[in-house]
Amino acid sequence: MEEQHLESSDFIKDIVIGMSDGLTVPFALAAGLSGAVANTSIITTAGIAEIVAGSIAMGLGGFLAGQTEVEHYDAELKREYEEVEKVPEREKEEVREIFADYGLDEEAQIIVVEALSKDKKKWVDFMMKFELGLEKPDINRARNSALTIGTAYIVGGIIPLAPYFFVEDAHQGLLYSMAVTLMTLFVFGYFKSKVTGQNPLTGAIKVTLIGAAAAGAAFFVAKMFGG
Amino acid sequence: MEEQHLESSDFIKDIVIGMSDGLTVPFALAAGLSGAVANTSIITTAGIAEIVAGSIAMGLGGFLAGQTEVEHYDAELKREYEEVEKVPEREKEEVREIFADYGLDEEAQIIVVEALSKDKKKWVDFMMKFELGLEKPDINRARNSALTIGTAYIVGGIIPLAPYFFVEDAHQGLLYSMAVTLMTLFVFGYFKSKVTGQNPLTGAIKVTLIGAAAAGAAFFVAKMFGG
Repeated sequence: MEEQHLESSDFIKDIVIGMSDGLTVPFALAAGLSGAVANTSIITTAGIAEIVAGSIAMGLGGFLAGQTEVEHYDAELKREYEEVEKVPEREKEEVREIFADYGLDEEAQIIVVEALSKDKKKWVDFMMKFELGLEKPDINRARNSALTIGTAYIVGGIIPLAPYFFVEDAHQGLLYSMAVTLMTLFVFGYFKSKVTGQNPLTGAIKVTLIGAAAAGAAFFVAKMFGG
Repeated sequence: MEEQHLESSDFIKDIVIGMSDGLTVPFALAAGLSGAVANTSIITTAGIAEIVAGSIAMGLGGFLAGQTEVEHYDAELKREYEEVEKVPEREKEEVREIFADYGLDEEAQIIVVEALSKDKKKWVDFMMKFELGLEKPDINRARNSALTIGTAYIVGGIIPLAPYFFVEDAHQGLLYSMAVTLMTLFVFGYFKSKVTGQNPLTGAIKVTLIGAAAAGAAFFVAKMFGG
């Protein structure tokens, strides 16, 4: 029987990762530029450039990180096989120590160690997970994850940017963008917290405040330097 | 005796996370704007706004994610304590299944289960780590991590942006920025791969290509829309 633990699917997590940054950074960038330029055309151009750059950095970066994780896992796996082969007594001692930490008496420790070390594959699997804390990563998952995160970043980024396409005055654009984005961040934070099992209202407020803080800081710094 | 596994400190990892994005996104944003505007002053303003926005989103976002992780852990911990209290037989069965999967025979399974379930705290610790794969998160670490990532983003972001401060022509700025940033990305990718135990040369090329791809895409898309 499966327990109902507070876990959401990887797909939902990836959407959340991409959208969090997609809503926040282009929003703040556009807000920053609104403090420094009068016309919205430069803001939409910069915003589009940022969305392209950010989605590629997050998506491609995420994919390559996934690849690296696979390589890392394989390297550690090879190493554990070698150790089990070359220094089995030391590896047995490590298993024994793990169970000693959990309060098993010496007799029980020995039984577990002997049972585990009978099957080399299972023994290595055990060491990978319980000694190193590594789970076998999935390269297809890395690819899908990259696509989802990149797409979510684009979708998130279009929301704060959209208002600037419809007005010419930057300050007016900023007002609409703030209204649309802060509301979206609130709703997004609410559902994000729901799927991750947190308090939805607290989560909604946190997410909205990050966005507002980033936008506010970008506005004032850009005004200082550029205005 | 500690094994020499390929792991770098959390501090180094945070620097790598912040710098990767800091070098890539502001670089690509500035490159994108260079395709659309003639003068560098708007590029430096946008770049500064982006660095402020990105470092806050990454830093503050990372800190709040760390907080959420702590809350999530505490909620799961409470739940496991309740389960151990209310449905101990089902929890014992879960422990038994974990060891059955590793090839322990029934006798050994029962010995481990009985030994583990003697101490409720250790039993719950075991379930947290081995059933749910959760380690106790550290909130101080979340705070430090946020600061390190945010700072590394700023340091990384200043490098591609710096050349635009010294020239007036955007295309000239882009050329200098490309030279400085692609070189930095290569060196950064090299050391990043070294500390994460990957092939340094492959890693250096990968990191440089992500940066170049993001900058190239941003340049052409911004030219299309804004130029």
